[in-house]
Order: sequence, then structure tokens, then C-alpha cells
Amino acid sequence: MDEPINLVLFSGTDDKLQAAAVMTAGAAALGRRVNIFLQYWALDAFRKDRIATGRGLSAEAGEAGAALVAAAAKAGQSPWHETLRQAKELGEVDIQACSLSMDVLKIEEDDLDPLVDGVEGVTAFYINAGDGHIVFI
Amino acid sequence: MDEPINLVLFSGTDDKLQAAAVMTAGAAALGRRVNIFLQYWALDAFRKDRIATGRGLSAEAGEAGAALVAAAAKAGQSPWHETLRQAKELGEVDIQACSLSMDVLKIEEDDLDPLVDGVEGVTAFYINAGDGHIVFI
Amino acid sequence: MDEPINLVLFSGTDDKLQAAAVMTAGAAALGRRVNIFLQYWALDAFRKDRIATGRGLSAEAGEAGAALVAAAAKAGQSPWHETLRQAKELGEVDIQACSLSMDVLKIEEDDLDPLVDGVEGVTAFYINAGDGHIVFI
Repeated sequence: MDEPINLVLFSGTDDKLQAAAVMTAGAAALGRRVNIFLQYWALDAFRKDRIATGRGLSAEAGEAGAALVAAAAKAGQSPWHETLRQAKELGEVDIQACSLSMDVLKIEEDDLDPLVDGVEGVTAFYINAGDGHIVFI
Repeated sequence: MDEPINLVLFSGTDDKLQAAAVMTAGAAALGRRVNIFLQYWALDAFRKDRIATGRGLSAEAGEAGAALVAAAAKAGQSPWHETLRQAKELGEVDIQACSLSMDVLKIEEDDLDPLVDGVEGVTAFYINAGDGHIVFI
Repeated sequence: MDEPINLVLFSGTDDKLQAAAVMTAGAAALGRRVNIFLQYWALDAFRKDRIATGRGLSAEAGEAGAALVAAAAKAGQSPWHETLRQAKELGEVDIQACSLSMDVLKIEEDDLDPLVDGVEGVTAFYINAGDGHIVFI
């Protein structure tokens, strides 16, 4: 239990990011370190000019699912980036952008929200992950 | 190998649920405990009034993929909920609904199929997961 | 760190396969064994007559995302199957097709690209995985 939880975030839809944020907050509440590695569409979601913009849900959500998620937000559920911000205040959460995805999406470090702590390659990710779980979301 | 396998099910499409059911059955056949944690659309798939209803496939399946999956079902492949039921008879499989997703989707414990053993929060999930793998599907 | 990294590939879109290939190459570069288990649409992507054909991206990529990925390919980014081929030359990477998915998709071993080393069931996958991470992509 001393090893970090390592989340590779690939998807950038609001529902998957919310699931990832909840898993991060839960681990942080238990005093476990969390490393987050941002790839592709999840990385795109952390652009500072887009982080507060809704990005839609998984295709399978459908209209009924979207209405329920919207109602939960209206009823006061924190958006995923708020939950992550709180988790960072509460515990040890490190968020790194995948350098290769930065290249593909033509994103510069300056474009990213301050939630992101830096940029690294996949080998650095593995080294920081140690023997902890790797969860791909 | 004494640690449980822990599956976080997020997607509720028939193909992903089938993949999850097969991983559960395989682990149970090897005598390993399996903890399943249901979030979002996977949770919705376990409503007792919907569990036997086909929910469609991942968007990428396409028409050709859908026809193959339908043919396999017709040829006698068990649906995912049957595979899970058998795995529960065979081994130690615990299925918990994520309390936060219950709130978002306005699902009550009574709405869920008896396959689901209870409702818990994400910290309880981590504690039960111990040092076992966490796999997000 | 002596345990293998075990990737269960389910999705067959170019972006997810690229993410999987990068994780494989990174692990191989660090001298870690990688076991890959191909299910459903990822298995379909390894058919020898389709492996070099673009298969599209996750639905969430959108037009803007697709244009960026296409530009990266044009600028010389290796396709995922090339990255995997290089990873196999560099390190110990074993790629197995899931026997159940072979049945569902009516694929014969002869239909698969030589990148695939064999066919196995889910229990064999677990046994080879040992205590290593299991990552579902």
C-alpha cells in the first residue's frame, strides 16, 4: 500500500474524467500518492482555455444519461477539475503531460492549466510508477 | 497471487461487459477473488429491469462487428450477465455499486439486479482491493 | 519490477493502439517483459490484411483531433504496428490472441499478422501475467 496509484488518462470526456477524479480523490483521502499521466484527449482537456468547458460524454451515455449527468452538475456535483484540485490540496497528486501526446496535439507547456505539474516521457512515467498499480482510463 | 483482482467497470456496452465477464470467470476459475466496482454506464446496465436487454456495442464495432457478435450470441455464447452469474457460483466474486454513481444516475439499491451485492464508496473499494490489480474497463 | 507488464487490448482505434504501442515500447526500453492479450476490436486490427489500414479514431477525437493525428503521421510519426515491431526487436514482447474473441470474430490463426505469437485463453493469460500489472486499453 506504500506504492503510488498511477493513472494513465487517455479519454477526455466529462464522465471518464469524473471517474478518474473520484479515484484520485479516494486514493488521496487514504494517504496514497497518485501519479497521473495525460495522453491524447485527456491531455487536450487540461488546456487552460478549455478546462472549464464541458467536453461531452462517452457516446454510450445517450440523451437520458446526459440529462442525468447535467442534473447532477446543477444539483451541485463538483466538476472533475475541481475534484482534482481538491485532491491535490488534500494529498500528494502529481500530474504529468505525455511528451509524445504534446507533440501530436501541438500543445505547449504554456497552454496547460496549472493543475499540470510538468511534461515527461513514458519511461519516466514507468520509473515514477514503481511497483504501484497502473490504471488506464 | 493471493490478492484479489479488482475490476472497475465504467462502460455498459455489451462487448466491454462481455470482456469483463470473461476476465472475471477466468480469475474465478483460477481460485482468485474478484471485486467488481460499478460506475456510470456499467452500473446502469445492472438495473434489474434492463440487465437482459441488449445495450449495443462500442461505437467502433461497426455494422460488420455487430453482425459477428449477434451471430455468436445466436450460436449459443452466454450473455455477459450469465457468465458473471456462473462465475459467482464458481468462485468468490463480489459486485459493489459505486455510491456516487448511484446518486448521479438516481438509482436505488432496489433497482439493481441481485447480482449486485451492495453499495460502497471509492475508499471502501480501495481498502477491499488491497494490493491486488486494479483494472478499469 | 521483475514482473511483466500485461496489456489487455480491447479497442482497435488508431489512437488507443498508438497509446498501447508507446506503453509497450517504453516498458521494453526499460528491459521489462510485456505480455499483450488481444480481444475484440484490437484483435481485428491485427488481421494481416488490415493491419496497415487506418481504422479511425475514438469518437471523441472529432475533426480537429483527427486532423492533428493525420498531420503527425505525415510528419513522420511511426504507425502503432511499426512501433510494436520495433519494441519486439528491442525487448521481450509476447502478443497473444484471445481464443474466445477469435471465435466471436471468426478469425483463424492464419489470418493474423506475424506480430501475433499465438492464441491462448484467459486463464493462460492470467498465469503468464503473474504478479505483474494488468492494464486494459
